[in-house]
Amino acid sequence: MLKPSGIITLTTDFGNNDYFVGAVKGVILRINPEARIVDITHTIEPGNMKQAAFTLLNSVFEFPPGTIHYCVVDPGVGSARKPLLAVTEQYYLVAPDNGLIFPLIADTAYRSYEIKPLNQEVQTVSQTFHGRDIFAPAAAEISIGFDYESVYPEYPNIVKYEIPKPRMQGHSVYGEIIHVDRFGNLVTNLRLKELTGFKNPVLELGGHTITDLTGFFQSGKGDEPFMYHGSSGHLEIAVKNKSARDMLGVETGEEIVLRSKNDGR
Amino acid sequence: MLKPSGIITLTTDFGNNDYFVGAVKGVILRINPEARIVDITHTIEPGNMKQAAFTLLNSVFEFPPGTIHYCVVDPGVGSARKPLLAVTEQYYLVAPDNGLIFPLIADTAYRSYEIKPLNQEVQTVSQTFHGRDIFAPAAAEISIGFDYESVYPEYPNIVKYEIPKPRMQGHSVYGEIIHVDRFGNLVTNLRLKELTGFKNPVLELGGHTITDLTGFFQSGKGDEPFMYHGSSGHLEIAVKNKSARDMLGVETGEEIVLRSKNDGR
Amino acid sequence: MLKPSGIITLTTDFGNNDYFVGAVKGVILRINPEARIVDITHTIEPGNMKQAAFTLLNSVFEFPPGTIHYCVVDPGVGSARKPLLAVTEQYYLVAPDNGLIFPLIADTAYRSYEIKPLNQEVQTVSQTFHGRDIFAPAAAEISIGFDYESVYPEYPNIVKYEIPKPRMQGHSVYGEIIHVDRFGNLVTNLRLKELTGFKNPVLELGGHTITDLTGFFQSGKGDEPFMYHGSSGHLEIAVKNKSARDMLGVETGEEIVLRSKNDGR
Repeated sequence: MLKPSGIITLTTDFGNNDYFVGAVKGVILRINPEARIVDITHTIEPGNMKQAAFTLLNSVFEFPPGTIHYCVVDPGVGSARKPLLAVTEQYYLVAPDNGLIFPLIADTAYRSYEIKPLNQEVQTVSQTFHGRDIFAPAAAEISIGFDYESVYPEYPNIVKYEIPKPRMQGHSVYGEIIHVDRFGNLVTNLRLKELTGFKNPVLELGGHTITDLTGFFQSGKGDEPFMYHGSSGHLEIAVKNKSARDMLGVETGEEIVLRSKNDGR
Repeated sequence: MLKPSGIITLTTDFGNNDYFVGAVKGVILRINPEARIVDITHTIEPGNMKQAAFTLLNSVFEFPPGTIHYCVVDPGVGSARKPLLAVTEQYYLVAPDNGLIFPLIADTAYRSYEIKPLNQEVQTVSQTFHGRDIFAPAAAEISIGFDYESVYPEYPNIVKYEIPKPRMQGHSVYGEIIHVDRFGNLVTNLRLKELTGFKNPVLELGGHTITDLTGFFQSGKGDEPFMYHGSSGHLEIAVKNKSARDMLGVETGEEIVLRSKNDGR
Repeated sequence: MLKPSGIITLTTDFGNNDYFVGAVKGVILRINPEARIVDITHTIEPGNMKQAAFTLLNSVFEFPPGTIHYCVVDPGVGSARKPLLAVTEQYYLVAPDNGLIFPLIADTAYRSYEIKPLNQEVQTVSQTFHGRDIFAPAAAEISIGFDYESVYPEYPNIVKYEIPKPRMQGHSVYGEIIHVDRFGNLVTNLRLKELTGFKNPVLELGGHTITDLTGFFQSGKGDEPFMYHGSSGHLEIAVKNKSARDMLGVETGEEIVLRSKNDGR
């Protein structure tokens, strides 16, 4: 059985300016003063599932086994959606049942449970801040070895969500920009391991045609956009020392088309 | 006597982009390498006492007993205002004596002291960064059991500050928006526990009249603003999946009037 | 020999919104689950060496001996620049060899090494995120006592970088604004300890002449800009309760001239 490591990561859309994150940390430390809380990010765009799933996919798996990942992007707070605990061989995931953590467990074995607030931990559960009143106590309880299996009912039919997948049409692959990072680099939903058959790739987006494929940023030429193998395992687009977003005038959601140079359109 | 928990929270207006927070953490860890430092927020608007007090009121009380709360919003740094330690049954509060922490202790027993910098900890005290030179060493010393009672003189006449309170006039309550959160929800200074006598409440602000009162966000209708019981214990105003601030065109400080539906104006 | 304290600070230009910081923390904790990670800042402007060096100079030295400082501002990631470990009597510095950490070690004894990724820690090293794939494992390994001296080759010829120094011309000192802090205060590159000979200093910048020199913010007069002894050890310029940047219309890089009142120009 998985042993909690005492590490609890936080990924939310609560922002860094409000009392929300402070209150969550306080609740966790009141229950487990030895918890080691690690901020992943609190600035997921409000309710943006795609961005949240992408962020989680690229950070959660780096942590040691037994880490508890608190993932709260929760536009349906207060409604009938259940609070969820999913346990894999490696991690505990505490999240609303709105699909948020599904991409993290889609390819692995897991058991899922409905979180039931313990009476002694919260006097009243607000209808607007389950992050503080339900998810934080649950994460903290699990970190001190709470026997969730005998208290939380199993809840196997969880909501499923997938980051949009590219589709093949003829010899072309149609995808989209799913993330723009701080440097203005564009992350596509094309996974590198699925592109090994492409020779001399040509990428089109926002009226631009990109043919350069390079290994790293400094090998880009002038202000020309280029493709590269992103650290997220996806095909990405950058401009050397500049923001590709600004240079190309594109945003998250922009369609991209990838084909091989010698194929007709 | 209160035993320090080893947890030190930080609430400041230092921002996240400067060296300020890093320097404070370094000073704390130099004195107590085992301190567990928890960021509440560093983006209180410069000098905004109302926002700082609201943030502290909604996070400080979640933490375990013995937590040291470092609260530094300090427009008067370098002037004659004293550096302050307040000790309640639950917490240590380290702050400038400008009223900042008064709302946290107004309803409880406390003792207050003037912080006196210890010679061995700081070589020179700057006149512009007491957060690093006075408050950080004090918080760290207290966290390792420093006998403040025999070194810091008692200082009972601290500066008092209160978040503006609503006032009754006839059958109406006049209040204001004291905070706008990341989601654009508007927090009023009307405390829910003081509103139990209101039947069929009608709220007016910025030329809008709001009559819907609901339990949670998803039950809001279309783009109609609604009132709800906020997680801060205050009456709040939201628009479903939108920013009430943007939809209503109001900001912090905007006056609100609450009355019961059947009362005349 | 320097003993690692278990504390690892992070100073980067990764931003707080992406998965970058979360991934770095995960890698560190996977190797050393007991590491105490301390964020200094992640919002250095992309590639801004001057700002990064200034931030590091004002925070690194506050930390206890044995702290590992992870400093990654790295426009040349993927190119031939080496990953660097520098060890002083007090600290471990893990950084790209692009001059970033040179100001921290310029005045002290140090040994420098080329970091060699250990096979067991990373399966593949990306060409765009050495922060995760090279620097994070190195910092974590060192924190658990890894014998770097027998694995990393010595690498003495590191890249040198200096924050621009002021120059004397006649009786005047020509310098520049090297940083604007959150409050809009302007930090110059004039170090206070080098200005002791100046009587009645007069400062010119952006068409303004400043003659007031004061100890702290509240003693400023009205909207008049004034000089003061900054907590960074530099001469700084502020306006009471306002942003000197906005009031004076100047930015980082603006030239300043300092002279004594009685000297001609």
